[in-house]
Parts: sequence; C-alpha cells; structure tokens
Amino acid sequence: MAAIGRFQKGDDIFYAKVEDGALYKLKGDVFGAPSYQKKPIPKKGFRTLVPVQPSKIICVGLNYADHAAESGLEVPKTPLFWLKSPESILPDGGKIDIPFPDHRVDFEAELAVVIGRRIRNVTPKAAARYILGYTTAQDISDRTIQNSESQWARAKSFDTFTPLGPYIETKIDPDCLTIQLFKNGQLCQNSSTAQMIFTCSDLVSFISTNMTLLPGDVILTGTPSGIGPIESDDTLEVRIQGLAPLVNSVK
Amino acid sequence: MAAIGRFQKGDDIFYAKVEDGALYKLKGDVFGAPSYQKKPIPKKGFRTLVPVQPSKIICVGLNYADHAAESGLEVPKTPLFWLKSPESILPDGGKIDIPFPDHRVDFEAELAVVIGRRIRNVTPKAAARYILGYTTAQDISDRTIQNSESQWARAKSFDTFTPLGPYIETKIDPDCLTIQLFKNGQLCQNSSTAQMIFTCSDLVSFISTNMTLLPGDVILTGTPSGIGPIESDDTLEVRIQGLAPLVNSVK
Repeated sequence: MAAIGRFQKGDDIFYAKVEDGALYKLKGDVFGAPSYQKKPIPKKGFRTLVPVQPSKIICVGLNYADHAAESGLEVPKTPLFWLKSPESILPDGGKIDIPFPDHRVDFEAELAVVIGRRIRNVTPKAAARYILGYTTAQDISDRTIQNSESQWARAKSFDTFTPLGPYIETKIDPDCLTIQLFKNGQLCQNSSTAQMIFTCSDLVSFISTNMTLLPGDVILTGTPSGIGPIESDDTLEVRIQGLAPLVNSVK
Repeated sequence: MAAIGRFQKGDDIFYAKVEDGALYKLKGDVFGAPSYQKKPIPKKGFRTLVPVQPSKIICVGLNYADHAAESGLEVPKTPLFWLKSPESILPDGGKIDIPFPDHRVDFEAELAVVIGRRIRNVTPKAAARYILGYTTAQDISDRTIQNSESQWARAKSFDTFTPLGPYIETKIDPDCLTIQLFKNGQLCQNSSTAQMIFTCSDLVSFISTNMTLLPGDVILTGTPSGIGPIESDDTLEVRIQGLAPLVNSVK
C-alpha cells in the first residue's frame, strides 16, 4: 500500500507519501513518475488538503443494486452519470455547509477513482493503467431539490457537498473492499464494493468513451444502501477497507 | 462594442481586441483591468482559439418558452441546470465529431455568459458586475442518449459538443438580441433573447447561490425553438445580434 496526500505548510503546497504516520515529501510530478525524500518531514504545522483539484467530478448513480432498490429506481443497463461542480470538494476535517436547513440533506459514502493520465476511449482491461489510485468520498445530496427537478447536478453541487480524501491509495484492488459510513459513531451504511454493478475499470472505460479524462479527475462510483439525513453538528465518518478514513462534520 | 478573442501564433497564446478586422494585443489579465497595444498586430499566421477555458460549463434547460413547448416539457419555476464536460468545447471553425452516427444528434444555438470574477451568492441586480461578457455557443445533444436516460450530462458532454466563440463581447445588453441558427444556409432557429424565461442576470445570480463561479466559467442560457438534427458535412452558423458569428461543420 502507498498512500499519497497533499499538504500545506505556510505557502508551500506539496504532495507526500504517508507511511506509519510519517510524511515523505514527493519529488517530481504526482502524475508522472515521482520519487520520495528518504527522511520524513517534521509533522508540525501543516494541514491536509483535498488530495487533488479535479477539472471534473463525475458522479455515477445507482451503481449498487441495494441502493437502487431502496430508491425505488431500476438498475441502469449502462452506467448513469452526471457532473458535480469541482468547487464542491471539501477536505478531510472540513465542515459540510447546508444551504437550506429545512431541506432533507443526505450522506452518501462512495469510493472515488482518481485519474492519473489523460484518457480517451480506453477498454476496461486497459483502464487500470490510467488510474492513479483510489480515495474516500461522499456525494452529499439535497434530496428536497433532487426530488423536485429532473436533473441532479444542482442538488449535489453546493460548495462543501463533496468531502474527498484524505489520501490517494495507489496500490489497492478496488473490487472487493468493505465500505461503511458512521453517523455520530453509529453504523448506517455497510456494504462492499463487490456489490457494484459496474466495476471501477468498467466506469473509467465507459466514461472515457464519452469525454476526455484528465489527470486528477475524480469519478465517484456510487453509494450502497443505508443513506440517511444529516443535521447540524453531526459527525460523518466514511471507512473503506485499506484507505484512510474520511471524517467530516456538519456546520 | 468591444470584442475580445484568444489567439495562437506559434507557441504564443494571447488575448486581443478585435476591431474592424484588426487585432490589438491585450496587456495584463483579461479578467483584471487589461489595456491594449495601440498598434494592430500583423494578421498572418495565427489561429482563433476558444475564448476561454472554463472550469465549469453550466447548461440551462428549457429557458425559452417556445423550446419547452416543442419538447413537450413544462416551463420550470426555477432555472433548471446541469454541467457539461469542459473538454467538450470546440473553437469557431472546428468540426463536430458525432460518436454514434446512427443516433439523432441535434444543434442548439445558445447565448453564453462568460463570468469575469469569482462569485458566490450575488443578487440579480449585482450580477452584471461579475460578467466579463457574452459569446455565441451551441449545446450539441445526442438526443437518442438524452431520451434513453434521466440525466442529460452524458448526451451533451462528448468532446466537440460545445462550439464556443469566436469572441467575447464585453459591452452589450444581452436581454433583447436576435438569435438565429442556419444549417447549410437555411434558417432553422429564429428567436430573440427577449423570449428567455430567466434573464442572464437571473441565471448568474441563481447559479451563484448554488456553486462558486470562477473567472472564465461559462453559462449556456438555453436554446429557442427550431432545433433539428445534424449530419456529416453539415455547416452550422449561429448568429446572435451584435456578436461575431460562430461557424462549425460536422465531421
């Protein structure tokens, strides 16, 4: 396993490998063939940023059969996706800001694919070579808005509605990982990525036949069953097997 | 009127003011307070690029009552919008590439708003101060895909599906302009932006309450009635009063 994070110390923004709690600064381009400093850097005075700044966030819907069933919607025959505003990303530890407190707003735990190289039209078999790694995400959704109009982008694009990170795991098989969401310590979502209808490679391939994907682009691969509402001061923790947990609270 | 374009000559990419067919190179940031060189540059050997590289393309649907009627869809009470892939932009003169030749693919002429400054939560009255200008666009749509699934982003996000440009007109009132599309010289769409349900200022304000808008972001403000299919070798010309025409052909 190799976890890569993006950090800020003063004006310096940098990538580092995270190993046994120590940070080893990255040399070179994270999307190229980077190497790492051998000595860890002092662990004081830095903060964790979102691991990438995507040009696009592509959101896949109804990709777990159990969630499609709880939503009362049919499982799609090809991946159903749309785009979220890239300005909606929120780092680990950041606060989710609910714009309409009288609306129902839901958590949705998701495994996120981070694209490593420019892609267009790749096969599922070749897709893995274009993936930098995987990270943890949420697709926070204003369900009141989502249920009131045909297009879902607005309900999911408010600033802070895409918690993402903290690290990118570059050496993991994404196809059979436990995925869980805890609200205030209570287990609400509990599934496995093995339940996905379309695998990560399927999704990257399919989306690449639609649009050119760029390094740092993020694909949210859908949420399992167990979604539910959030309120002020809730703490939400997403745990995906082999990945660092993502913890956010609600303003 | 002041039209600003983005051009490339060799490795040099630059903005310039276009006046009486001459180009005056811009000094400073196009989103700041730029000035212009007094002498025009030689008109040889450069090509016209898309006028901006947006971080987001926001697409507004059913914003002309006549188009909503021809689509058999109700006029929305609040603006209906979604996001297109920024990789879908195509410059003036570029060729639209239809990925599925057996699908019905339609032209849609649209007036595009170009955001000039970072915005969040502005009123319709204040919105104009955050707009850099207006340009001409199309929202090419694979209608076969659009009619087969609930979300419209995929049908409209193929690379080359957002012809945009050629110039940004910074001094024009957008609220009462003739908008026309000619296919192979024949007039197909013929309306006025006065027919818009939500004005450009309404749209910028509403969208800014949902997501932070950045300089260069583009809002496609909807298409009037008269949309129709395109085929290989068609030539499409969008003419909006006071703006330079946008001409593209189909591969």
